[in-house]
Amino acid sequence: MSEQQQGQPSSSTDETKLTPEEKKALREQRKKESEEKKKQRQLERELQQKAALEAQIVRITEEEYINQSKSFGHIPIVRSTYQTEQKFDQVKDIDASYHDKIVTLRSRIHTVRGQGKSCFILMREGCFSIQATLFAQDEEGKAMAKYAQKLSKESVIQVVGKVVKVEQEITSATQKDVEVQIHKIYCISAAMALPIQIEDCMKVETKEEQMKANLAELEEAKAEEEGTGPKAVGQKLRLDNRVIDMRAPAQLAIFKIQSAMGRFFREFLYGLDFTEIHTPKLIATASEGGAEVFKVHYFDRFAYLAQSPQLYKQMAVVGDLMKVFEIGPVFRAEKSFTHRHLTEFVGLDIEMAIKSHYTEALEVIDKMFIYIFNRIEKDFARELEIIRAQYPFEPIIYNQEKNLRIPYSQAITLLNEKHNLGLALDEDINSTQERMLGEIIHEKYNTDFFIVDKFPLKLRPFYTMPCPEDPTLSNSYDIYLRGEEISSGAQRVHDAELLQQNAKEKGVDMTPIQAYVDAFKYGAWPHAGCGVGLERIVMLYLGLGNVRKTSMFPRDPNRVTP
Amino acid sequence: MSEQQQGQPSSSTDETKLTPEEKKALREQRKKESEEKKKQRQLERELQQKAALEAQIVRITEEEYINQSKSFGHIPIVRSTYQTEQKFDQVKDIDASYHDKIVTLRSRIHTVRGQGKSCFILMREGCFSIQATLFAQDEEGKAMAKYAQKLSKESVIQVVGKVVKVEQEITSATQKDVEVQIHKIYCISAAMALPIQIEDCMKVETKEEQMKANLAELEEAKAEEEGTGPKAVGQKLRLDNRVIDMRAPAQLAIFKIQSAMGRFFREFLYGLDFTEIHTPKLIATASEGGAEVFKVHYFDRFAYLAQSPQLYKQMAVVGDLMKVFEIGPVFRAEKSFTHRHLTEFVGLDIEMAIKSHYTEALEVIDKMFIYIFNRIEKDFARELEIIRAQYPFEPIIYNQEKNLRIPYSQAITLLNEKHNLGLALDEDINSTQERMLGEIIHEKYNTDFFIVDKFPLKLRPFYTMPCPEDPTLSNSYDIYLRGEEISSGAQRVHDAELLQQNAKEKGVDMTPIQAYVDAFKYGAWPHAGCGVGLERIVMLYLGLGNVRKTSMFPRDPNRVTP
Repeated sequence: MSEQQQGQPSSSTDETKLTPEEKKALREQRKKESEEKKKQRQLERELQQKAALEAQIVRITEEEYINQSKSFGHIPIVRSTYQTEQKFDQVKDIDASYHDKIVTLRSRIHTVRGQGKSCFILMREGCFSIQATLFAQDEEGKAMAKYAQKLSKESVIQVVGKVVKVEQEITSATQKDVEVQIHKIYCISAAMALPIQIEDCMKVETKEEQMKANLAELEEAKAEEEGTGPKAVGQKLRLDNRVIDMRAPAQLAIFKIQSAMGRFFREFLYGLDFTEIHTPKLIATASEGGAEVFKVHYFDRFAYLAQSPQLYKQMAVVGDLMKVFEIGPVFRAEKSFTHRHLTEFVGLDIEMAIKSHYTEALEVIDKMFIYIFNRIEKDFARELEIIRAQYPFEPIIYNQEKNLRIPYSQAITLLNEKHNLGLALDEDINSTQERMLGEIIHEKYNTDFFIVDKFPLKLRPFYTMPCPEDPTLSNSYDIYLRGEEISSGAQRVHDAELLQQNAKEKGVDMTPIQAYVDAFKYGAWPHAGCGVGLERIVMLYLGLGNVRKTSMFPRDPNRVTP
Repeated sequence: MSEQQQGQPSSSTDETKLTPEEKKALREQRKKESEEKKKQRQLERELQQKAALEAQIVRITEEEYINQSKSFGHIPIVRSTYQTEQKFDQVKDIDASYHDKIVTLRSRIHTVRGQGKSCFILMREGCFSIQATLFAQDEEGKAMAKYAQKLSKESVIQVVGKVVKVEQEITSATQKDVEVQIHKIYCISAAMALPIQIEDCMKVETKEEQMKANLAELEEAKAEEEGTGPKAVGQKLRLDNRVIDMRAPAQLAIFKIQSAMGRFFREFLYGLDFTEIHTPKLIATASEGGAEVFKVHYFDRFAYLAQSPQLYKQMAVVGDLMKVFEIGPVFRAEKSFTHRHLTEFVGLDIEMAIKSHYTEALEVIDKMFIYIFNRIEKDFARELEIIRAQYPFEPIIYNQEKNLRIPYSQAITLLNEKHNLGLALDEDINSTQERMLGEIIHEKYNTDFFIVDKFPLKLRPFYTMPCPEDPTLSNSYDIYLRGEEISSGAQRVHDAELLQQNAKEKGVDMTPIQAYVDAFKYGAWPHAGCGVGLERIVMLYLGLGNVRKTSMFPRDPNRVTP
């Protein structure tokens, strides 16, 4: 036995001789050992850190903090023993107009450096940062500097200080033309040793690197399982520690854009008298006949998680709400581990009564996207800039009035002409071909946002209204952004007989969804709508390469934590 | 064997002699037979109706409809063959100012009557209705009247006509001072025989009757199972046919108020720079240590449905989003069949960083409710009136600046003083006692909306911040509306060590939620928040007696359909 093998007892077996069961057991044992070791290391780190911190901590009382009779120190845990009258400022607001003003800021320590009498802290609050400086003038100042130098990264601190304009731009901060001269500094909540560094979460990544992050995640998982070597800070480690990872300004800004998408979606629709609805996620049967549905133990029976609010939003329309939308989770038990699939994501759904033609709905949808894009560009310019710095992207090109609409057959023709693919006019196209189409359209029509209309009926679900002029086509459309589908929609069949006939032709059994079919027997408004994936549209709007960047706690076949 | 028994073979057995298994089999057989019979009857009704309708139908072509060259008739299914230039009016807008104007309306037939040359149609569009009249002057008119008289209730029609002021108020319509003289009438979508009448869904009900509806539902279910007698139109039949039931104007108006609650909730919080988040509903373990959690088959493992976004919204705050809210479904596997419990409902959740005291959050929450209530009263007065007509209620009384806050101990004292209950100061109170408290407060302080603060620590979850002045209390609060809890909230523990210590004292195992505990190790903002049940607050705001009135497709232990 070699020395190396002695040091790794659990690896000493000749694996080639093992049965599959034994191999599995071995893998599991190793995984367990690796996890144990990891835990142990983590615990040790924390204890060391804690001891080290304890030795240096200056603790002050609540009174000393409130009266500011002490100018620095750790304060006790905030437990609502006092109500501060203190007005707090925000990092994002502070600029040259604050020159000479005293401000109070509560923020994190992004970085801290300095020695002897001086200390420099980059303070970070949300997406924004500002430099704070300390040059000791006396003994008290020296003690403060010594205290501040030892504060740990990511700790929550409170600083009182004077804003001064600076000659030379501070490139590391978002607030580049000012700094804060520290008068007082308190630690509100000290950070222990970090499992990942925020800098690792702030690395510039190209779209292609982002798209490949899943491959790297599989590698990371394998390395972790085998307990080999120090892990690279890749997607896995970052998502495992999302609460730290998401503090990276670009990541925070992405979630702000996500919030804004939902906000402007609703704002636009409220303006048109839409009603927001909430449809059940627990349903008795697979809602759209698909197999990719999660099964739930529901008391003494089974229920399923809704794959979309499709049937319910239609029922809400014929239930006389007329124009409805929903924002809510949808669930897909699809074993896809790609850059753009999640098992749980947020659906933005629209359904509305129409008078005579589904273009009435398409008008609303097109104008809605224009509204959303315009508002984000206008109100979230700073966030877009912050995202762009880490994840470079071009702003999308779209029309302010009405975006390009082409029939599906024309899309196929464009693809065939450019790439000689020989696709049939009613053939389904894959995601690579979709991206090719996006490039062709971008070149030919100078737009990143377009609608493909009149999809072949055979490619659409049973509730899609067939095209009256050509029974092989349908009154349905997909919406594309940067060559990926962000939304799918159609006029729906609002006649119970026609619905049953279509379902029969598609071989769909309607028995489990009889209530849905019946809904159209008692007078039904003609209607159309669409569904949008929130994470996907944020991803494509921002030119990101992985949907995990736009889901706070993403779910995929390998991940249900944290 | 008597004649009667011959006619009911499956009832002829002497049931007293059967084993429990046989009894069960018999019950199931009867249920099956009853369902078969029901289906058969339904099918027969539909076929009869269809045949009868077919015999009387006047069908016209699309051209005849578009050119209006024919003045009445059924049009073909709307399939987007044409785009109408027609401007449509809405029933709700039409009043005396429209006198002498020609309008085009699309609506349902609420009722239709008349004979010979005349016809009266009450047209209903959403929550609003208007009377349309026809007095034939010629042969064409007579044919039109004959056609119109035969139209079925709930059919979708289109009417072109002249608005005229009327002398005598039309009490059956919401638009009381006008009627429409029919010039043209087309049927867009004909309704078949209705399983329930809309009038049955429009019956006035007291709060007490609504609260008892579940008992009636159990009776209905039993009767249905046993196949006995004609069923009363109670909660069961109405919810089974929700798509018709929800067309009752008061029910529609309730859903509009629900939509508005969510809208104004968000509007207020956006104004304070909150970020909307979407946290996962599929989680690896029971989120708050409870047993009442639904289990999901998640590929080759199990996952669970989130009982609240509690842990995740806190993680979003310490992940530096600072102030967050979420509107989304929450799931409770609780076998309660009461007027106020659902297994799936919509949670409105708030969580925000605070500087020093949780009253900072309480201020926001209180002001938010005031904003919501004010906006609804102002913008939805017509809907409130429509709801009140069917489900009578008094408007809630609340303060415009700051609502009453009393400590929990005072709430107990008030209850003991009035009702001599002898409750201990840290004793939990049940829903009856909550309602008593609501009455006492209403009488004493003239308000329906108040906050109870400083709950006993033992009544709150492990993540609640203990009260620094009294370790048996906590920094937590409940908000009451009309004597029922609509929201629960607290300052949370933001220190990992304190959190672990509290969990230990409560006997909660933190191993499965280690990521949550860890989140507080790396610098944490002190924070507080609350959760609100959307269906419940709408119910209480409107003085309704059953949460099924505020959930479109309610879920309870007995119901996962439609």
